Amino acid sequence: MSQKSAPRPPKTSPDATRRSEKSRRAIYAAALELVGEVGYAKTTIEGIAARAGVGKQTIYRWWSAKADVLLEAFLDLGEQAAEQAAGPGAEYGIPDTGDLAADLKAVLRATVDELLDPRFEVPSRALAAEGVVNEELGREFVAKLLDPSLQLYVRRLRSAQDAGQVRPEVDPRIALELFVSPLAQRWLQHTGPISYAYTDTLVDYALYGLAPR
Amino acid sequence: MSQKSAPRPPKTSPDATRRSEKSRRAIYAAALELVGEVGYAKTTIEGIAARAGVGKQTIYRWWSAKADVLLEAFLDLGEQAAEQAAGPGAEYGIPDTGDLAADLKAVLRATVDELLDPRFEVPSRALAAEGVVNEELGREFVAKLLDPSLQLYVRRLRSAQDAGQVRPEVDPRIALELFVSPLAQRWLQHTGPISYAYTDTLVDYALYGLAPR
Repeated sequence: MSQKSAPRPPKTSPDATRRSEKSRRAIYAAALELVGEVGYAKTTIEGIAARAGVGKQTIYRWWSAKADVLLEAFLDLGEQAAEQAAGPGAEYGIPDTGDLAADLKAVLRATVDELLDPRFEVPSRALAAEGVVNEELGREFVAKLLDPSLQLYVRRLRSAQDAGQVRPEVDPRIALELFVSPLAQRWLQHTGPISYAYTDTLVDYALYGLAPR
Repeated sequence: MSQKSAPRPPKTSPDATRRSEKSRRAIYAAALELVGEVGYAKTTIEGIAARAGVGKQTIYRWWSAKADVLLEAFLDLGEQAAEQAAGPGAEYGIPDTGDLAADLKAVLRATVDELLDPRFEVPSRALAAEGVVNEELGREFVAKLLDPSLQLYVRRLRSAQDAGQVRPEVDPRIALELFVSPLAQRWLQHTGPISYAYTDTLVDYALYGLAPR
């Protein structure tokens, strides 16, 4: 028999499972709303519980700190956005049609849509702001929320290297920043407008360089 | 006679000027320390005055709001850093030796040093964090603190276009983001380490592209 490290789901009736699922969704929604309204520092487990209409103990049964609740709420928001964009159960990832520029442009256009969607934008800004001054929280959220997305770009760039479309000596983890970071900075710091035309241009500049060819 | 919109300096004795200058420096230092310690929201004119050892009225004589004090304190910090790096009275800018890659690498290395200097890093993070969630403040600080630096890159890239080293159809304001924004994002969001080797690589990738040449 194999050892399982993940806890098994508790044996509950279908009704209890539905009730739990409803509470969980209400807690995620409350956490995202609250952090967007009052910021990370003033968001509390008590406040989330009150807004979700559940007892504090319901939250502490599942999570030990507000950072954990928020982390899962963001993961859930990301999954919902991916399903909405690609259909239920769709694999979240970067297409690999063989046309690297087209694939990168498509995924960056979807990111533009997400960044401009208030449901995502407001809580994400609150969390990003806290991460700037709170290195521990920043690193945890990067590891769990941002890095997994960046790894999809790494994989797509490696596939392009195999296909001879990206120079073999290029480090994909740095290369992806040429088109991901400009969009992130414009959004985070309000340094300029973001649009499909803008991200398309970033991809072209990154792939073909600024110097004459 | 020409109209002057800037107020003329008050006629004061050399001693009074020295005292003013000393107060001004103490206020800048206090503002930067305080915002780094307690964040933007909790920084007050009263707190700055108390720490600087001046009366509140001394601050209100020169500035109308804490954002204005902080803005000038950062401008002064930037000027000091530039003088320290390049000697007193030196023109702050990007060298134009004719070797675009070398010039960009030099200025980005200096930026790495600045980002890792605690005197700059701690207050800058506090202000950047506030700018993420406070669009009005963010835009004001971008316009007055960040854009002037970015315009130096625009000018250097235009000069490189004139010299045939950058493709004529490239938009310099977007192009500069290929090497500036990755560094900014790593620093702001703790998404990766920053070093000279890293910024050198960004410049090479941006100029020569990721695709085989």
